[in-house]
Amino acid sequence: MTPISSLANPTIKHAAALLTQHRIRKKSGQTVLEGVHLIEAAIKQNFTIKQIIIGQSALSHPEVAGLIEQIAQSIILATDAVYKQIRSLGTGVDIMAIVEIPTPALGVITSDCLILDGLQDLGNIGTLLRTASAVGISTIISTTGTAHLWSPKCLRAGMGAHFSLAIFEQVDYEAILQKVKIPLYATSSHTDKVIYQHNLTQPIAWVLGHEGQGVSEIFLRTATAIALPQPNGQESLNVGVAGSVCFYEMLRQRQFAQH
Amino acid sequence: MTPISSLANPTIKHAAALLTQHRIRKKSGQTVLEGVHLIEAAIKQNFTIKQIIIGQSALSHPEVAGLIEQIAQSIILATDAVYKQIRSLGTGVDIMAIVEIPTPALGVITSDCLILDGLQDLGNIGTLLRTASAVGISTIISTTGTAHLWSPKCLRAGMGAHFSLAIFEQVDYEAILQKVKIPLYATSSHTDKVIYQHNLTQPIAWVLGHEGQGVSEIFLRTATAIALPQPNGQESLNVGVAGSVCFYEMLRQRQFAQH
Repeated sequence: MTPISSLANPTIKHAAALLTQHRIRKKSGQTVLEGVHLIEAAIKQNFTIKQIIIGQSALSHPEVAGLIEQIAQSIILATDAVYKQIRSLGTGVDIMAIVEIPTPALGVITSDCLILDGLQDLGNIGTLLRTASAVGISTIISTTGTAHLWSPKCLRAGMGAHFSLAIFEQVDYEAILQKVKIPLYATSSHTDKVIYQHNLTQPIAWVLGHEGQGVSEIFLRTATAIALPQPNGQESLNVGVAGSVCFYEMLRQRQFAQH
Repeated sequence: MTPISSLANPTIKHAAALLTQHRIRKKSGQTVLEGVHLIEAAIKQNFTIKQIIIGQSALSHPEVAGLIEQIAQSIILATDAVYKQIRSLGTGVDIMAIVEIPTPALGVITSDCLILDGLQDLGNIGTLLRTASAVGISTIISTTGTAHLWSPKCLRAGMGAHFSLAIFEQVDYEAILQKVKIPLYATSSHTDKVIYQHNLTQPIAWVLGHEGQGVSEIFLRTATAIALPQPNGQESLNVGVAGSVCFYEMLRQRQFAQH
């Protein structure tokens, strides 16, 4: 197979655009997974891979060889120079996959879910998806204005969590309030009732807000406010940490509380 | 005051070097705080500020005016063009401060501490310092090979936590084991005993390891291994999340457990 040596190749051009432009991801309904780990995680969850692109030198890498065996889709080879010009990962094995972004329709929600309300930091979002998946929260909803969950950076921070979750992106506030039939809980600095004083054994819709502005008023009106104690008086926690501490306290109360 | 319009100005040159080069920070024993929030946090904790640099347009910003009133140190003004060329923050109010990095000597440790063992991600480290400070862990020790805690990116992620903590950097393993007189605890995937089954009410030295390789063998030999349950079978959690969940469970057992 002769490796592609031109950035003008349509597939290479498309991959480069998907890696850098939200507009193109939205328009095409596709995104790019970079690296062996993410692609393996997607295959494990039966994700549809449209196209694999491999940097020439990576072809002999044992992990890539193992991966190729599992893939029936078309593979194209790029020269290392071309691959390095389009990749967004600085290091690692040079393999990427173009995949379809799932766009499920939001139905009635009656089990644990996480509502991302305006979060902007893709690392924070990916971290939250990772913890949500670990504790068994399987539904993620983002409001309009939240950063794009299927962007390469968020996929990377999620470490494969995306593929085991039902993700509903850019849903408007009214639709969320209409479909989510379980109580909303939001961390807040305006309550003294700390998380350990709340009963978290029933299904919960966790709402986490924008890094600076917090949770929107429309959710706060109906949400139960919970405090994370901070005896040393710091201003606030990283939102990925705050959410993860909440999820684990929920898990503890359900599965590990002493009776 | 005529703003400095040349990158060759010694103070500007020094600030630019501190922002980008670990070697220069180490040699000079100084670092740079960017933005109003970090500088205010440092002043609140009586940190010694050597020099303030302000971008010309930021001088009229109300937050900057409020800050200047609290500062006796020398202030220099840079043209916006010069400031924008050296800053590492993409947005925000153009003010930075050169400060001395504290270098306390490690004494005997008998109260809660956090040992960072080879962590490389400055965002993860900053997040951990933030949570540690919030829950009241006041001593941080990093092993040789851990990323630099006083780098601008780590300071940013720490959101001011650095200034309320005693930070001992780049300490060798033997010295840590010799000085830390309380039990070591480390998260591990090789134990079934979950964190909720451990008694965390005595002083603890938490050990968090490198993002890929985990905690070093030399610590694992003496550390109590604890598991964070992951019912959905994810591979691992973000290290900032894992540590933060541990710290909060410690806090819960000490202050919020039902008797």
